Amino acid sequence: MFTDKAVLLISCIDKPGIVAAVSTYLYEKGANIISSDQYSTNYQEGMFFMRVEFSLPGEGWTLSQVEEDFKPIADKYAMNWNLFPNSRKKRVAIFVSKEDHCLVELLWQWKAGDFECDIVMVVSNHEELRSAVTGFGLPFYHFPVTKENKLEVEKRHIELLKEHDIDVIVLAKYMQIVSPGFIEPFKDKIINIHHSFLPAFVGAKPYDRAYERGVKIIGATAHFVTEELDAGPIIEQDIIRVSHDYSAAELKRVGRMVERSVIARALQWYLQNRVIIFGNKTIVFK
Amino acid sequence: MFTDKAVLLISCIDKPGIVAAVSTYLYEKGANIISSDQYSTNYQEGMFFMRVEFSLPGEGWTLSQVEEDFKPIADKYAMNWNLFPNSRKKRVAIFVSKEDHCLVELLWQWKAGDFECDIVMVVSNHEELRSAVTGFGLPFYHFPVTKENKLEVEKRHIELLKEHDIDVIVLAKYMQIVSPGFIEPFKDKIINIHHSFLPAFVGAKPYDRAYERGVKIIGATAHFVTEELDAGPIIEQDIIRVSHDYSAAELKRVGRMVERSVIARALQWYLQNRVIIFGNKTIVFK
Amino acid sequence: MFTDKAVLLISCIDKPGIVAAVSTYLYEKGANIISSDQYSTNYQEGMFFMRVEFSLPGEGWTLSQVEEDFKPIADKYAMNWNLFPNSRKKRVAIFVSKEDHCLVELLWQWKAGDFECDIVMVVSNHEELRSAVTGFGLPFYHFPVTKENKLEVEKRHIELLKEHDIDVIVLAKYMQIVSPGFIEPFKDKIINIHHSFLPAFVGAKPYDRAYERGVKIIGATAHFVTEELDAGPIIEQDIIRVSHDYSAAELKRVGRMVERSVIARALQWYLQNRVIIFGNKTIVFK
Amino acid sequence: MFTDKAVLLISCIDKPGIVAAVSTYLYEKGANIISSDQYSTNYQEGMFFMRVEFSLPGEGWTLSQVEEDFKPIADKYAMNWNLFPNSRKKRVAIFVSKEDHCLVELLWQWKAGDFECDIVMVVSNHEELRSAVTGFGLPFYHFPVTKENKLEVEKRHIELLKEHDIDVIVLAKYMQIVSPGFIEPFKDKIINIHHSFLPAFVGAKPYDRAYERGVKIIGATAHFVTEELDAGPIIEQDIIRVSHDYSAAELKRVGRMVERSVIARALQWYLQNRVIIFGNKTIVFK
Repeated sequence: MFTDKAVLLISCIDKPGIVAAVSTYLYEKGANIISSDQYSTNYQEGMFFMRVEFSLPGEGWTLSQVEEDFKPIADKYAMNWNLFPNSRKKRVAIFVSKEDHCLVELLWQWKAGDFECDIVMVVSNHEELRSAVTGFGLPFYHFPVTKENKLEVEKRHIELLKEHDIDVIVLAKYMQIVSPGFIEPFKDKIINIHHSFLPAFVGAKPYDRAYERGVKIIGATAHFVTEELDAGPIIEQDIIRVSHDYSAAELKRVGRMVERSVIARALQWYLQNRVIIFGNKTIVFK
Repeated sequence: MFTDKAVLLISCIDKPGIVAAVSTYLYEKGANIISSDQYSTNYQEGMFFMRVEFSLPGEGWTLSQVEEDFKPIADKYAMNWNLFPNSRKKRVAIFVSKEDHCLVELLWQWKAGDFECDIVMVVSNHEELRSAVTGFGLPFYHFPVTKENKLEVEKRHIELLKEHDIDVIVLAKYMQIVSPGFIEPFKDKIINIHHSFLPAFVGAKPYDRAYERGVKIIGATAHFVTEELDAGPIIEQDIIRVSHDYSAAELKRVGRMVERSVIARALQWYLQNRVIIFGNKTIVFK
Repeated sequence: MFTDKAVLLISCIDKPGIVAAVSTYLYEKGANIISSDQYSTNYQEGMFFMRVEFSLPGEGWTLSQVEEDFKPIADKYAMNWNLFPNSRKKRVAIFVSKEDHCLVELLWQWKAGDFECDIVMVVSNHEELRSAVTGFGLPFYHFPVTKENKLEVEKRHIELLKEHDIDVIVLAKYMQIVSPGFIEPFKDKIINIHHSFLPAFVGAKPYDRAYERGVKIIGATAHFVTEELDAGPIIEQDIIRVSHDYSAAELKRVGRMVERSVIARALQWYLQNRVIIFGNKTIVFK
Repeated sequence: MFTDKAVLLISCIDKPGIVAAVSTYLYEKGANIISSDQYSTNYQEGMFFMRVEFSLPGEGWTLSQVEEDFKPIADKYAMNWNLFPNSRKKRVAIFVSKEDHCLVELLWQWKAGDFECDIVMVVSNHEELRSAVTGFGLPFYHFPVTKENKLEVEKRHIELLKEHDIDVIVLAKYMQIVSPGFIEPFKDKIINIHHSFLPAFVGAKPYDRAYERGVKIIGATAHFVTEELDAGPIIEQDIIRVSHDYSAAELKRVGRMVERSVIARALQWYLQNRVIIFGNKTIVFK
């Protein structure tokens, strides 16, 4: 039963009457629309995207009832849709390696009450960040990864994540390329952060190459993980300005700063059910 | 008759069913909702704000018919509402004194096709910018203003603006304080731009005082003009970073840069009917 | 003895030959200039400011020797000057009340190795942040402050700070107005952070008033503390963009974000001896 | 003869005593150092870069005399060096095709007195922008370019530019790849502007591809032209934030905005002799 708020996310082929159908349905159920965002595109696809946040002040409601009720409308318009009650906090797992900047930012904002979620666990292929994690009262799972055991470890990851009913996985500087077999069961639920440069420096030591080229801005991109490396739908990006007198080490430090703010915003929007994936892009209703 | 697009702006006290009523109405008229933004607040007021952009593909429609049709719904919810057909471009008058930076930015973006409006005239209390204006093929009206003739000139301004059916007046560095008698007939239709500092420097020579205090950012604010000087609803703000080695003159130059981009964005949003005024603030649906 | 790096900060009335005198002196001592920034102004004052970072590869040098050597040159030009050897880390005390965002940011960056300093202690007028501080292995001093005991407590603060040889005090959301008697012994050594708005909202509940006015940016200012409240020389400022759908609570959250990045940059520049105070402004050699 | 200001730009292998030698030289000549920036790197190269701005109040000085005087010092340290008297304004040629946004920005800032230079001519491979240019009282040269006549046209470009003693060429959306034969005589003197994306989209229709990937920021890069396409030393970069509801056309419009501000800043710094090229990067003394 939920008596407070929920978010409905919809994507489907655009047709007249969708907003009317959804809002009339909610009105008749006694819901109060708190905010409603809608975006249509006729670029190639003619797609319709909607986010409705509403409260259901009545009693006796169950989530499954609302879902059952809404099904005929959803079917009529062939919607992809999800209903997220606020009472059901998303369950988050954070994957890290040795660098702590993204991890600590997320844990601090979470402890400060800025994230509406349960951070359930931190998983790492190294030991280094154990005390940082347990200091927040969170379990820390260490799975050493080698070329040989990688797929086996990923199976154990999946078991652990399933067992704890994890909704979203944040790769917060997890320096392992995850395999398709890991991505598949968590499709559209794995968020990664990586540095970004203008222009791009593909390959090893990007900060050294950015230094050599004398870039004037350092960026970061948070995106969903897909099979193609670092090419999934972008959730958020940002940059910080630098100058010639930043060493490669200082560029890295700036990179850490921009990475931690970008991953935090991306997770926030995901937790608030503001992000819809379509093809290889996102709609982010801010 | 309009067969293309229109924007409906609504503000009223929040009640269940408003979105349903509006979207069902549009659906039944055969309209296609292109985008819909809605914002509700229960901070003090419990107000509801909505912007719907839609197309009306049918024929035989007149604006007055739609307005007449929608009236019962609007009345039921005691809405403040406006319907803006795209076919009716807003008519803009720009007021300037001697500085050209905001004027030229607006005229250039307009000529580049970025503003959907008719810039109808430029009014000035000085002669300096005549050729800049006539070079764009626009009429330039020069009304010298003195302490003695100020109210008389404002009457002639009002006549001229009424005669040309002006929808919005941009004070693009018009260095005169306009009187209540001028504001009243154009309530919520006069946009001003002015520099902003952190902290604020009230009084004369703000750039000199900002220099003396060593400010690190220079800002600008675009706002609607109300009787209280520079205290009307804010439409847009921005800043540019500066350092100790900017002279007061260079701070002014930076101020010009930020002023022209802020006034251009504020006008753009107004022209696209994205701005609703409520009390002393704006809702800007971007 | 110091065999590595040092920074020399100079301010004096501008005259020909200063750069030559300083650089020739350093050359003759065998120093290698790593970076040198110089700024002159003929706005009113005709002042000269210089920051030189150099290494002294030779042996047998003592700080007092260099100071003694340089004195005739300094006297000739009536310089205000300070020599900061890198080997002597600045000793920092952080003052807090109940809000932890600035504190945690500073401690995290310090632990990450980004600040070259010793954070020696945290002082608070409340108990709330004790465990956050002791978790970093730092002493936490709690001095409850009342209207009656305020001056007495400040005396004990001063004793404690003197006893621990503190170089810089960061008021990281210390919600007490410090009195002139506290400022005087730490003149130009107390850094404060506070929110800033465009326009300024003087008085109580600034975020509520910013919400009511519908501001589009939220800012923060780090400055040195002087007797006039929040009017001391500005070290750094920044802003984050917001929109109408931020509640007053969310504006506060954004305020925390911008405050913590601004105070961290201000402290960083101070620790790197990049900040010279002149009159009521700063020269920051970045 | 020059009795006012000049800038000296120096790059050489770092050795002790360079700053002392330069500043002592200037002092002995009676020069007053207005500002002095210096940057050394021991990353790989161990290079030294310096920008000194000074005034020479005395009479009877000629540029060639100063150059002759300074030569022994320059030779001693094997400097690359250039002396730029303020009295000798840089002569600028702007190359354009059909898009006017960068051109108009540069001409407007120039007319506003923000650029200390002579804009001598505008060259285009199209007719479209003739009146925009002649309206500023500038000559407009139209050279249609085909695959067949390209090298021939470039020869005529070079003749024209040499004849008018051009110091810097700004490719302000000149949609032709210039050949090595054109670059060679104007090495380090051709500035180009182009869009930049995170991640990079190499190939045709980058804005369409950025739209498809749903990028959240649109950038621009100003750089010196080298033989490798768009890979020369970066002078300045910036970005503007966008969202999912920007069409590909609107992304292009944002691209124009960021391009014009970036090219203007890059040209400004070049005109003020703030830019030193070293390898494939720039040192920009701001």
